[in-house]
Amino acid sequence: MNPTAQRPKVIIIGSGFGGLFAARALAKAEVDIRLIGRTTHHLFQPLLYQVATGILSPGEIAPATREVLARQENVQVELGEVTAIDVEAKTVTASTLGVPRTYSYDHLIVAAGAAQSWFGNDQFADFAPGMKSIDDALELRGRIFGAFELAELAAAQGRHAEARAHTTFVVVGAGPTGVEMAGQLAELSRRTLKHDFRHIDPRNATIYLMDAAGAVLGTFDESLQTRTRRAMERLGVKVLLGAKVVDVDARGIEYLDQAGEQHRIEALTKVWAAGVAASPLARQLADQVGLQVDRAGRIPVQPDLTLPGHPDVYVVGDMAALDNLPGVAQVAIQQSRYAARKIRASLGGRPVTEPFSYFDKGNMATISRFRAIAEIGKVKVTGFPAWALWLGVHLVYIIGFKSRITTLLHWVVSFLGRGRSERNITEQQIFGRLAMDRINDLPQRAARNVGWTSSDEA
Amino acid sequence: MNPTAQRPKVIIIGSGFGGLFAARALAKAEVDIRLIGRTTHHLFQPLLYQVATGILSPGEIAPATREVLARQENVQVELGEVTAIDVEAKTVTASTLGVPRTYSYDHLIVAAGAAQSWFGNDQFADFAPGMKSIDDALELRGRIFGAFELAELAAAQGRHAEARAHTTFVVVGAGPTGVEMAGQLAELSRRTLKHDFRHIDPRNATIYLMDAAGAVLGTFDESLQTRTRRAMERLGVKVLLGAKVVDVDARGIEYLDQAGEQHRIEALTKVWAAGVAASPLARQLADQVGLQVDRAGRIPVQPDLTLPGHPDVYVVGDMAALDNLPGVAQVAIQQSRYAARKIRASLGGRPVTEPFSYFDKGNMATISRFRAIAEIGKVKVTGFPAWALWLGVHLVYIIGFKSRITTLLHWVVSFLGRGRSERNITEQQIFGRLAMDRINDLPQRAARNVGWTSSDEA
Repeated sequence: MNPTAQRPKVIIIGSGFGGLFAARALAKAEVDIRLIGRTTHHLFQPLLYQVATGILSPGEIAPATREVLARQENVQVELGEVTAIDVEAKTVTASTLGVPRTYSYDHLIVAAGAAQSWFGNDQFADFAPGMKSIDDALELRGRIFGAFELAELAAAQGRHAEARAHTTFVVVGAGPTGVEMAGQLAELSRRTLKHDFRHIDPRNATIYLMDAAGAVLGTFDESLQTRTRRAMERLGVKVLLGAKVVDVDARGIEYLDQAGEQHRIEALTKVWAAGVAASPLARQLADQVGLQVDRAGRIPVQPDLTLPGHPDVYVVGDMAALDNLPGVAQVAIQQSRYAARKIRASLGGRPVTEPFSYFDKGNMATISRFRAIAEIGKVKVTGFPAWALWLGVHLVYIIGFKSRITTLLHWVVSFLGRGRSERNITEQQIFGRLAMDRINDLPQRAARNVGWTSSDEA
Repeated sequence: MNPTAQRPKVIIIGSGFGGLFAARALAKAEVDIRLIGRTTHHLFQPLLYQVATGILSPGEIAPATREVLARQENVQVELGEVTAIDVEAKTVTASTLGVPRTYSYDHLIVAAGAAQSWFGNDQFADFAPGMKSIDDALELRGRIFGAFELAELAAAQGRHAEARAHTTFVVVGAGPTGVEMAGQLAELSRRTLKHDFRHIDPRNATIYLMDAAGAVLGTFDESLQTRTRRAMERLGVKVLLGAKVVDVDARGIEYLDQAGEQHRIEALTKVWAAGVAASPLARQLADQVGLQVDRAGRIPVQPDLTLPGHPDVYVVGDMAALDNLPGVAQVAIQQSRYAARKIRASLGGRPVTEPFSYFDKGNMATISRFRAIAEIGKVKVTGFPAWALWLGVHLVYIIGFKSRITTLLHWVVSFLGRGRSERNITEQQIFGRLAMDRINDLPQRAARNVGWTSSDEA
């Protein structure tokens, strides 16, 4: 088990698609790998919305990183937050629960990914959580299912305006995550919950999908954009395009429309799926080599994914800016494999002289159960065939799981079954944050008080 | 949907076995039922240890109460904590997020259950969480899997005493929950995690099962007690009997042995499965009718489960003291069905004159995967047959689930498969409570400092 001191040390930062696939691509290399992750799991981020809406459990989309890599003896997995990288000294400093330590490396793969960005309005985060982590998804799950509980109570007591605000959901950001989220909220309210309440009809829930841009799924072909928009509308989702969010509070959201007019939506549950910002490590690296990060905080890497003057430092995935590549799993996976190939080459393998080139396998997004859209090169697929494709591709890339068969069976049950069994709200959420955001917060924000009392009427 | 005003109002407090089975037993009765629950789910408590140790997800053992009762139109489910019962005025006051409301009833079934009890030492709870709720199980899951992460880090840095304390687990209370928990911790460390680490060998984890009494599974037949104790020891669990806990802190636990000598175990993860205390509503009811609650806070009910002078108020399950019946699901289920039968009789059905009598279907406890013990009357079953029986019985009583087939399939996969895929630690746990309990707390408790520094040695 004890690695020999002679083998080159590879440090990988991050346990997302980039970090995990880099480690696996070095499975047979004579190196000692240290993979440092902020969490103990590999998160299959494209399915996070399924946790947030009660279909899958966290374990079904986020296996323990060390379990995935248990049999790969040249890697050790370590829980820690990397606080500093020194590309001159070739060291990485990580910290866990306040205990720091510094490691030296021979090769470094930085794959720390991106976090949600509220575009400089971090105060929105309390009221409109992001969709980037298991914590986010569980928080949203509690808020979403909690909203219906509170709406039922409000309606039973005749507070119909409040009940409506509880059953109004706003998803900000009409990329794949936003579209999937809005679609699931529609299914949840129209189908899953329809028999569960006595004083509200969940089918009357209002779901907004809002984006500052003029289209849904901006990166897709226009025909698919139109089709998705129509499909959303058929599901009962209100699509608001050219809508720029200017304020978010506990009770609602305010936006400017294309004409510059300001509107307010009373909605207690907001989901922020709008922007991402690369890990702050990108800026730290950029500063050391005299580069500037781009608007999304990404570092412009060399064509071989390294930093200028530092062929031993690779930056991959959401942290790297290269050729305008999108922030999707495929880019991170291919880049990490390229970096691993270069490292293997440095150990005496076949030299890699060509720059990284991305092979676009296509893009896809689900719209609802059994419906998706996909574009593979010039080919466009929609409806059920696209959904089947989507399912297949996702299963192939769930590499993270100890037993793919077990996972597949779990999925088949959770996914194709009509159940939405993972809808727990914790007591902490009921008595803690849920209460804080929804009730206690209201008097403090009296300026925003829109006049719900126990006697207001629909 | 709108209930007619004439139908008798039945209020049920609690969504556990008592509350849920009471509601279902009144499915065909011409009554309006209001089931008020502190949480939104029906918790299948006997399987909580499976959530705490990463086998099942919360949704698999705790379906939404309103989903279970969705099709039963005479019941409305309401999230709320009952704060007051007035048996003279025949009203119940509930509160949700600080909004109180009062309902009158014609019949009341109080099934608010019991919470963990630290026998007057509530300060232990932070360091040795109980095993009574989904929150408890998720908290323990984070601590248990987090402990191995921190042990790996400590060992990598040469802090071996700390690593040992991280991989020492103490389960207080050797009833079925404690036995099941200790057995799972043994399996987890001996089997599940054995390939996952590089600096520690999880198989060397130390697991204590501690009880102030002189036997494990005190309520079972002596031959089964001995057998279980031996089985635990074969699994590598250290069984400490006659051990009375006198102090618990962040780093360890102190107990008196039978000779009155005090000992300390350095163990960061403690599980409290020792005592229960009935809902404080029991005392509130007792005060109103001039009764005294017993040591476990339970109210001595009449032979027909009502309060003296209040034939419209039933107290069932863990809150009721009657004939020394144990605090198990079967008692709550049978009592709630009896109460429901009396209520149906009051509506013009066949009168119920006989008092409640408990039909003991037997007791069982699992020891490890594929091994259990059971006693049904004088018949004792052990090993695999008992385990198969245990599985069958639990499946039959998972009534809570929308689709029993889906649940069964999920279970088969999670349970019989070798996976333990539900082992997520949230970031909140990593950066929040886990850190607080483990690191930040330590300097504050300097008196208890047992001298771990980064240079101590095994």
